[in-house]
Amino acid sequence: MTPDWLDDLRATLPDEALREVGDAYLAEPRGTWRGSAGAVVAPRNAEEVSQVVRFAAARGIPIVPWGGGTGLVGGQTMPDAAPILLTTERMRAIRAVHPAENVLIVEAGCILADVQSAAAQADRLFPLALASEGTARIGGLLSTNAGGVNVLRYGNARDLCLGIEAVMPSGEVFRGLRRLRKDNTGYDLKGLLIGAEGTLGIITAAALRLFPRPVSSGTSMMVVPGPEAALDLLSMAQASGGVSAFELISGQGLRFLAETDLPVRPPFDEVPEWSVLIDLGLGPGGDPQKQLETLFAEAFDIGLVSDGVIAQSEQQRHDLWAVRETIPEANKRVGAIVSNDISLPLSAVPDFIEGCTIRLRREEDLRINCFGHLGDGNLHYNLFPVEGRTKADYAGRAAILREIVDEEVAAREGSFSAEHGVGRLKVGVLERYGDPTKLAAMRAIKDALDPKGIMNPGAVLRSR
Amino acid sequence: MTPDWLDDLRATLPDEALREVGDAYLAEPRGTWRGSAGAVVAPRNAEEVSQVVRFAAARGIPIVPWGGGTGLVGGQTMPDAAPILLTTERMRAIRAVHPAENVLIVEAGCILADVQSAAAQADRLFPLALASEGTARIGGLLSTNAGGVNVLRYGNARDLCLGIEAVMPSGEVFRGLRRLRKDNTGYDLKGLLIGAEGTLGIITAAALRLFPRPVSSGTSMMVVPGPEAALDLLSMAQASGGVSAFELISGQGLRFLAETDLPVRPPFDEVPEWSVLIDLGLGPGGDPQKQLETLFAEAFDIGLVSDGVIAQSEQQRHDLWAVRETIPEANKRVGAIVSNDISLPLSAVPDFIEGCTIRLRREEDLRINCFGHLGDGNLHYNLFPVEGRTKADYAGRAAILREIVDEEVAAREGSFSAEHGVGRLKVGVLERYGDPTKLAAMRAIKDALDPKGIMNPGAVLRSR
Repeated sequence: MTPDWLDDLRATLPDEALREVGDAYLAEPRGTWRGSAGAVVAPRNAEEVSQVVRFAAARGIPIVPWGGGTGLVGGQTMPDAAPILLTTERMRAIRAVHPAENVLIVEAGCILADVQSAAAQADRLFPLALASEGTARIGGLLSTNAGGVNVLRYGNARDLCLGIEAVMPSGEVFRGLRRLRKDNTGYDLKGLLIGAEGTLGIITAAALRLFPRPVSSGTSMMVVPGPEAALDLLSMAQASGGVSAFELISGQGLRFLAETDLPVRPPFDEVPEWSVLIDLGLGPGGDPQKQLETLFAEAFDIGLVSDGVIAQSEQQRHDLWAVRETIPEANKRVGAIVSNDISLPLSAVPDFIEGCTIRLRREEDLRINCFGHLGDGNLHYNLFPVEGRTKADYAGRAAILREIVDEEVAAREGSFSAEHGVGRLKVGVLERYGDPTKLAAMRAIKDALDPKGIMNPGAVLRSR
Repeated sequence: MTPDWLDDLRATLPDEALREVGDAYLAEPRGTWRGSAGAVVAPRNAEEVSQVVRFAAARGIPIVPWGGGTGLVGGQTMPDAAPILLTTERMRAIRAVHPAENVLIVEAGCILADVQSAAAQADRLFPLALASEGTARIGGLLSTNAGGVNVLRYGNARDLCLGIEAVMPSGEVFRGLRRLRKDNTGYDLKGLLIGAEGTLGIITAAALRLFPRPVSSGTSMMVVPGPEAALDLLSMAQASGGVSAFELISGQGLRFLAETDLPVRPPFDEVPEWSVLIDLGLGPGGDPQKQLETLFAEAFDIGLVSDGVIAQSEQQRHDLWAVRETIPEANKRVGAIVSNDISLPLSAVPDFIEGCTIRLRREEDLRINCFGHLGDGNLHYNLFPVEGRTKADYAGRAAILREIVDEEVAAREGSFSAEHGVGRLKVGVLERYGDPTKLAAMRAIKDALDPKGIMNPGAVLRSR
């Protein structure tokens, strides 16, 4: 169905800024639902984005900003409507590198892997790292305040951004591409747009923080008796500094690797029920292997670890990381009943895992793969069918199981969305568990900045 | 003059929540102006704050939140009106310490030095550190997104805060005292209230981030040929890690120490025109003195430093820091014509110092004391009378001199307020140099969250 405004839009923009409406823009990684679009536009810069936004604002047409399309909560997917889908793919220049300042200026359509490379070429580190880094774009990563494996040391996407350029729902351009470490000149509009999932404006460029590249890195997988011991080991590791990732892995995740015929195995004779993957990045004079050996020895002495492997080469580091990074693919093959992206106060993690697991098992016969960024209290606590059954067999039970997890998280002052955001998937959950005063303030801010409700309507807040 | 609502307010609150209106609450550190108040209230918790806010909202009475009263831009000082001044002094409990999580929960009225002590007692570091730490309170420090000497390594106040409890202009309580490292559940209301200088609500408690305490620390003062070399030295120092402060000191600042009879002297025979103070804090196995010696030797070889002193004891560290920390007192005694709190992109710092100094000297015969947190690009670039003249002699020239500095900063994409905020002092400067789109968004947010305009009116944004 062709929207009646399409010819007008064509007349407004250069030909090359219009894209075919198609699967590439409407599909969604988990296939939970399918988006729709009246037009797909690919503006080249903030001025063209502004033209599109003014066009849409004048006619009350919704706009869905689209980065790499890798979001897992439907923020980039508006079903049952004919919005203008605005892809950042033509804004992918790296505008400037300032190694002496540890700053990189990039456009919103830059792919994360390219940003990482540009930083590396300047002998710097851009530490944002996550599974979809080959596809995800900076604009989307900032709009969702993305997390990943290095948050423990370097923070979330919001922490890695010094300034942004963005187009507001009025079409006005916010020129906030500052590269300052201290700047207290009014409200933190940058921080508000970051994490707003495209509902308050469209980020078109960003000034990103760089860091010195670690001179040497080390990786170890260690077997722990349980989550409590893993947390003690984390404390111990952090006291010596340099910990850039600390990942929890459950036996269930490792068994899924074998079950789904993925050619990756943990480096132990027996599959450990709980293990952790530790990554160190050290400066000059550091010796990560020695530091990991000392950590292992001290932890072994007091029973915090029972077995472990320390990578002796880059290949071995890669192989250990492959174990962790292949688990999501195994999950996909098994087919989760419910996927979660939760976070908890660190000291509440063991009690949550125990309490929630008991409650779920009482309710239903299922398998739990609990893994994730333990250093941040961020768990992917995902529920799977027992062997011989499939996701479909649990169709009627998913909602209640999801609710149990959300309740157990809320009871421990945790979050139902640690790093993936609210999108369209969790609007109801936010309404239920979010602080009512915060929700009222969010609604007031949304109405004030986007009075016509055109920016990604239905994401984060229910459209009305 | 007694406001006609005072008896009603007395009837609303417990007796002990009312304070005498007096100098302690109306004076302002630099004596630039004097505040006024119809009443001073000292609520004990968020519920009592909420009562006061509802009382004020119903009658349209302005509220000025008041922390330690140490702000330098008049944010805590509303002249020519009879607001309710709300002091946080009775909310000073440390509610909880979570060493395993590196989190501390404190009420807004906690004095910074007490928070630092509480962290130290739990063998942790709370890194916010600044001159007024014995008086400034956490609520005010967050509301102004305070900076200080450790921003380079640990970030500004906003970066050190995981969650807040706050009372909104409606009187509703935002219960956002989360202690999560990852939490993407809607807009960053916490980050918006932090740095809003009390114009969007009143912070009543905060969850603060703690860090491992450095095992060993070292301090050095090194003489550099100029700001450019100082920046190269900073890069070199950062490559080895552990730099927690990097302060620039000008010869003018050191000469002021002697001129004002302050009993503190730099450890060099001749007063160096430019020097830096470097502080290292290292983990287990680190040797800060050795690291500083290596840094000095390498920098000396390539002409980045010409002289230097490395502290050999805690007393010597203290003495070196005393040089830096006594400069503001010397400034006060000399009497600045104009004080600035600016920041610049790091690589623009040398050009700014050169260009702005030339332009000012062409305009007026004056002395410049340029010092500050070079690692953050944050300079206190303050203008003083030449010997034999006083501040008063320049009275008619201050505005034009201030404008020159602001222009030179803006031309290099810097900020006219790095760490002190906008307050009432810089409302006009923000209107002139702020991004118009950001200003419009700020106004829309202010009107949406505080439609009656009762929260600290006239701070940050002009009241209307």
